[in-house]
Amino acid sequence: MSENEISRRRLLGAAGAAGATGLVLGAAGGAAGYAAASGDAPTALTTVGSTGVAFYGEHQAGITTPLQSCGHLITFDLAPGAGRREAAALMRRWSTLAGELMAGRPTGDGDTGVALDAGPSSLTVTFGFGRTFFDRTKLTARRPAELDPLPDFSADQLDAKRSNGDLWVQIGADDALVAFHALRAIQKAAGDAARPRWQMNGFNRSPGATGKPMTTRNLMGQIDGTGNPKPDEPDFTERIFVPSKTQHAWMAHGSYAVVRRIRMLLDDWERLSLKQQELVIGRRKSDGAPLTGGSELTEPALDEAGPDGKLVIPGNAHSRISAPEQNGGAAMLRRPFSYHDGIGPDGTPDAGLLFVCWQADPLRGFVPVQRKLDRGDALSPFVRHEASGLFAVPGGAGKGEYVGQGLLEA
Amino acid sequence: MSENEISRRRLLGAAGAAGATGLVLGAAGGAAGYAAASGDAPTALTTVGSTGVAFYGEHQAGITTPLQSCGHLITFDLAPGAGRREAAALMRRWSTLAGELMAGRPTGDGDTGVALDAGPSSLTVTFGFGRTFFDRTKLTARRPAELDPLPDFSADQLDAKRSNGDLWVQIGADDALVAFHALRAIQKAAGDAARPRWQMNGFNRSPGATGKPMTTRNLMGQIDGTGNPKPDEPDFTERIFVPSKTQHAWMAHGSYAVVRRIRMLLDDWERLSLKQQELVIGRRKSDGAPLTGGSELTEPALDEAGPDGKLVIPGNAHSRISAPEQNGGAAMLRRPFSYHDGIGPDGTPDAGLLFVCWQADPLRGFVPVQRKLDRGDALSPFVRHEASGLFAVPGGAGKGEYVGQGLLEA
Repeated sequence: MSENEISRRRLLGAAGAAGATGLVLGAAGGAAGYAAASGDAPTALTTVGSTGVAFYGEHQAGITTPLQSCGHLITFDLAPGAGRREAAALMRRWSTLAGELMAGRPTGDGDTGVALDAGPSSLTVTFGFGRTFFDRTKLTARRPAELDPLPDFSADQLDAKRSNGDLWVQIGADDALVAFHALRAIQKAAGDAARPRWQMNGFNRSPGATGKPMTTRNLMGQIDGTGNPKPDEPDFTERIFVPSKTQHAWMAHGSYAVVRRIRMLLDDWERLSLKQQELVIGRRKSDGAPLTGGSELTEPALDEAGPDGKLVIPGNAHSRISAPEQNGGAAMLRRPFSYHDGIGPDGTPDAGLLFVCWQADPLRGFVPVQRKLDRGDALSPFVRHEASGLFAVPGGAGKGEYVGQGLLEA
Repeated sequence: MSENEISRRRLLGAAGAAGATGLVLGAAGGAAGYAAASGDAPTALTTVGSTGVAFYGEHQAGITTPLQSCGHLITFDLAPGAGRREAAALMRRWSTLAGELMAGRPTGDGDTGVALDAGPSSLTVTFGFGRTFFDRTKLTARRPAELDPLPDFSADQLDAKRSNGDLWVQIGADDALVAFHALRAIQKAAGDAARPRWQMNGFNRSPGATGKPMTTRNLMGQIDGTGNPKPDEPDFTERIFVPSKTQHAWMAHGSYAVVRRIRMLLDDWERLSLKQQELVIGRRKSDGAPLTGGSELTEPALDEAGPDGKLVIPGNAHSRISAPEQNGGAAMLRRPFSYHDGIGPDGTPDAGLLFVCWQADPLRGFVPVQRKLDRGDALSPFVRHEASGLFAVPGGAGKGEYVGQGLLEA
């Protein structure tokens, strides 16, 4: 199955679920994908709970799946003594479990009951392997070069304890109890084989909070993700997914996820005027259009100067520096969650972006863009990268298989 | 206006928005309240974003308003040097702001833009005063006895830094960005008059995740709130709201909120079998029905014994001990949010319930029930009260007025 995504609401960023097919459990309506999101009509929402995403397929779910309103990221390190055998058994347990969870079925005697009464609510569970996983399982010969550590960026202030990890699981759903239920089930199924290293919670807009098919906003108020590759672009698949013929066959149809916890310094950001904020980004806040005019998806006129002779979109504007055309066509599919872990007594919110981006090769996706941003992005003073991870996310499992089987059993 | 609630989805707990009137902004459909929730049909959700709750009215919003999917609780202490005058100005600013926010309107030049494109999404902003507020503003003569400190309970493990506070604000919405936007706006509008003391985030089920008009579940998987007073009961209003003739006139039509951060010891809880869990609660997990049979709203047969001669609903079952009929009719309207602040490296989730309950008099609502639970509740080993607050929540403001005006200007 090459299309295992189900979509009934607006697109993933400006993009969406490529060639989505409808799988709606126990409800009329549903289906849709790109077409349903292209109009201005309020999105039909009778399927919030009943919409399910297929676990089994060519690609894992949670990559081109439309953004969900609730997310959990969690990494595990293999327990002392656990190696390849235990990891294989764990991935088999987890895959079976994820299939049940994503179908909205109770998971047996140990089910906590937290998701009872709810449908699958677009739940996705996505599994990845970090660089250290290959040392622990003595599989370094099968470790792709794409998992080489990310370069250091000058502005990084990374917390090692909240970075990387042997195993990464991304959970997303349109209901917070369904998402928590899945997180807890995944954690318990780890058993003695692995234990949590770090865990983070995130969120996006609720389905139906806006009827507009607009890219999501982040906690700076900015439309975020406009430059995402679009599923109808001819090179979409090859940019995001590892091809079927590749050096490490177990990564065929897989993808690489870069995860960054990006703290937003909102007190500083909000001291800027609207005009100043728009110059930092190079886009209008209201609708995300380039400062050179048009609407959100209009190409920015990067060379256009104003009456004062200065570039309308400043040389260090975030949208200019991160544009694919400024980075040798580098493209990644950004699929973030916002986070907010509370306001401290000093009034400062611990809030920002759980940035997750997907690409066939991080050295042609995230790295060149981040390197350039690191040198001269006007947004830099307002953000702080606090944690980082890089994970190899294998292709999807077929029925009766498990994610990573090609790595662990070949 | 005696009914300022708008409801288009399922009831508040088993209860709901008493006599709800429909106010749906910019969308067809809507209205509803009790009737819409009484059927089994999936709830219409085209109004998730467009549904607004009225700020101005006899009661403040956020008390009988149906549970929203996202919540923030925040307290502020008045800044050194700030007194009654500054507090009055702050309450005026906040009230005006809350009116704009709840109508889904941008809040002027300083608006962060985070809620742009979204409708009001059932946003409510509710204000309360803590005991210390009256000392700070030299208004101790107007402090109701209902604000006397809650008694110590033997099982309390309260963190003073996360308890109480001069001013309390409860924010709820069905969209996380709308809720965050409001939180940030309220915080900024505090200006130099007050600063955050503690802040907590919570959540409930998303509208539409289940089509059933069932009481919400908590993170133990238990249906929670079955025993809530129902809006169609004749004494509903007098149990929840302070009467119009009362010793302190400024509290007419107000209510008292007890807030408890109740950590759930999920590892311990989930080690119990389903049968053991049901004996602890005295209800079936699947549907919330009493162990003596029926459905969720069936009266439990508290005296019924099984073939072994033992009570079917054990003597220390949580639902028995907390039942109003076991507590001199004590009743409170429970309107909680679940919370989950992450999983630590030891695997333990910091999760549980932001318990918020409403009553005309805490000494006849929360206190007797909690006292009894404290003595012999089978659930006690699985929960830990970590923070506590008690707040006087005045009646609603009329147009041109602000919340607390009767206290601060009389």
